[in-house]
This record gives sequence, structure tokens and C-alpha cells, in this order.
Amino acid sequence: MKALQEKIRKEGRALSEDVLKVDSFLNHQIDPAFMQEIGQEFARRFKAENITKIITLESSGITPAVMTGLELGVQVVFARKSKSLTLQDGLITSSVYSFTKEERKEISISSDFIDENDRVLVIDDFLANGQAALGLMQMVAKANAQLVGIGIVIEKAFQNGGMKLRENDVKVESLAQVSSMTKGNITFVEEEVFV
Amino acid sequence: MKALQEKIRKEGRALSEDVLKVDSFLNHQIDPAFMQEIGQEFARRFKAENITKIITLESSGITPAVMTGLELGVQVVFARKSKSLTLQDGLITSSVYSFTKEERKEISISSDFIDENDRVLVIDDFLANGQAALGLMQMVAKANAQLVGIGIVIEKAFQNGGMKLRENDVKVESLAQVSSMTKGNITFVEEEVFV
Repeated sequence: MKALQEKIRKEGRALSEDVLKVDSFLNHQIDPAFMQEIGQEFARRFKAENITKIITLESSGITPAVMTGLELGVQVVFARKSKSLTLQDGLITSSVYSFTKEERKEISISSDFIDENDRVLVIDDFLANGQAALGLMQMVAKANAQLVGIGIVIEKAFQNGGMKLRENDVKVESLAQVSSMTKGNITFVEEEVFV
Repeated sequence: MKALQEKIRKEGRALSEDVLKVDSFLNHQIDPAFMQEIGQEFARRFKAENITKIITLESSGITPAVMTGLELGVQVVFARKSKSLTLQDGLITSSVYSFTKEERKEISISSDFIDENDRVLVIDDFLANGQAALGLMQMVAKANAQLVGIGIVIEKAFQNGGMKLRENDVKVESLAQVSSMTKGNITFVEEEVFV
């Protein structure tokens, strides 16, 4: 998605070879109109999949997931990273290791909102080592629902998460794939353009 | 907002006199089309205030804030409840006590995204004792920005948060005000209707 590459080039900051800061439009400040374009692009790429539900992870996954749900006309469920007072029974859980925070977290969704009839699209803001997406996929499997796609806003293509997800015979769409970063410079995997 | 009262009556569940569960459309599963209506309603109520920025708190505040931002054409910033690896310097912080979780949390926003020229609308999903909204207000003050409104999706009018906020000479708009709950029954403060 060219507009996303341009947005990352303009507003993103490579703090190191690993850390990309995009907190002006995606994960701290949010640009609602641009995120609507992101949702429209995911909807375009997955509209043939007859999706019935979108699953994401709080907090930065919520906006791209909701904008996609708005476009596809389906409900969104965000997995929680902490236990809720009003959400205790009937939880589907998975364990996710965060390399950046060096901690293991249990994530959960309520079994009220996903079942074996669902065709699920997983949406997340970043794909690096794939831990979050794999955790979400595991919950879809536990619910006996069918995973039909994974949509990622920004993939760090130099890490192995994309490979791990694509091993699972599921359609993975990343709107921007960063091939390498040096401090101050960001390079993308060029998209194939079908005319 | 009549449609919200109806949605709460239909899908909400009063678990006790204090706890209202609305996780089918607002704070776990999200109904994107309905949340767009919520955003349009906030925009209608605050459009005269020349808002330049919306501030909310992760996670359940994000969707109503983003939908309002989409309608008003302004950026949204969500305060974080935990420290981010890529967000460390220049933080504006506030301390918020959660009565439900019985713990004090530090919330923060980056000073990069709010300044003294901003006219800020605070949006949150729930208003009960007002701790979260007061914490957000405090951050707006620390940034020397001007708070011009507070928009709440559901106010528990039988708790004192609404009173505390309205003492501050700021326009507070709650889209639904619950006056009382018993297990299984939810009563609303009726809205004044201007014809």
C-alpha cells in the first residue's frame, strides 16, 4: 500500500535496526481518516473470504480492526491482555511472549463472541516475530472457528514472523513490509503491482 | 441518545447494582457501525467547540474516540496504562485509581502530540467515580492545552463522577445516563428533548 509506505517514510522513525516508531498515526496518536483507508484496503483484500468476525489484540490493533469491520459489516473482538472484572467465565486463552517487554502474557477472549460457524480474520498493527498473531490464531483454533486470513499493517520482513504465519496455509496480507532499517532510514519490500 | 439506551437495554446486562456488562458492542466485542453512530453523535454535540485534538484512555475509549475524530477531522491520542519501549521521553503522566481493580496506575501521553494551542475533547467509554476522566483532564492541564469538553458513552449517574467533572466548568455530555440498576433491570435518566 503506497500511501502507507509514504506515511511511514514521512512520519515513522527508525530508532535502531529493530525499533520502528510510528506513534504519530498508529500506536499512540491515531490518524482516523488514514486508518479508515487502512480498513478499506484490508476489506478490499479480504472481501472474497466471507468473513464473519475480526479478532485483534488491544490496544493498537483495535483501530485498524474496527475500520476493517466497519467496511466489511462485521463485529470485532479484541483480546485482552489483563483480566476484566466483568469478563471471567467462558474465556478462551493463549499465552504470548513479548520479546520487546521480555515477559509472557496471557491473552483472552470471551467464548460468547466466537464459535465454530465463524470465518475469522485476524488483524494486528505489527508483525515481527509473530508471537501475537500466533496467539490469536491459537484462540481461533480453540474456538473451533475457521481462520481465513491475517491482515498486518506493518510487517518487519527481516524478522521471522511472516514466515511462521505463512507456513500455516493461511492468506497473510501485510500493507507495508519493511525489509531493513538503519537509524534514520527505512527500506520496503516492493509490492507486486497487478495492472 | 435513544439508540444507545435501546442497545444497552437489549444487549447490556446488569450484573449487580454497580456492574454493567456491555461487552457485546463496546468493551470487548465492538460493533463498528454502531460505534460510528456514537462518533457522529459526539461530533454533533461538540462541533461548535473548534476541537483540535481528542484524548482518550486505552483500550475501550479508543473506538468511540476514533469514530468521533473521523467525524470531526482531528487526530486522537490514547493515554497508555503501561510504559512503551518506543515511548519514553517527554511523557505527561497522571495517576489514576481504579476502584474496580483496587490499584493505582500511572497513565501517560507523549508531549509530542498535545500543546498549548490545542482545544481538547476527552472521550471515554464509562464514567463512574470519574477517576479516569480526572486523570485525563489533569494531563490536558499539564500540557497547557485547553479542555473544551468531555464526552462519555455511558455514565453511571448514581455515582459521583459526573458531579465531580461538572464542577470544573466544562461541557460534559453523556450519551446514556444510567440512573439505577438492579440485577436484570436498567433504568435511565431521561434525556431532555429539544424539538
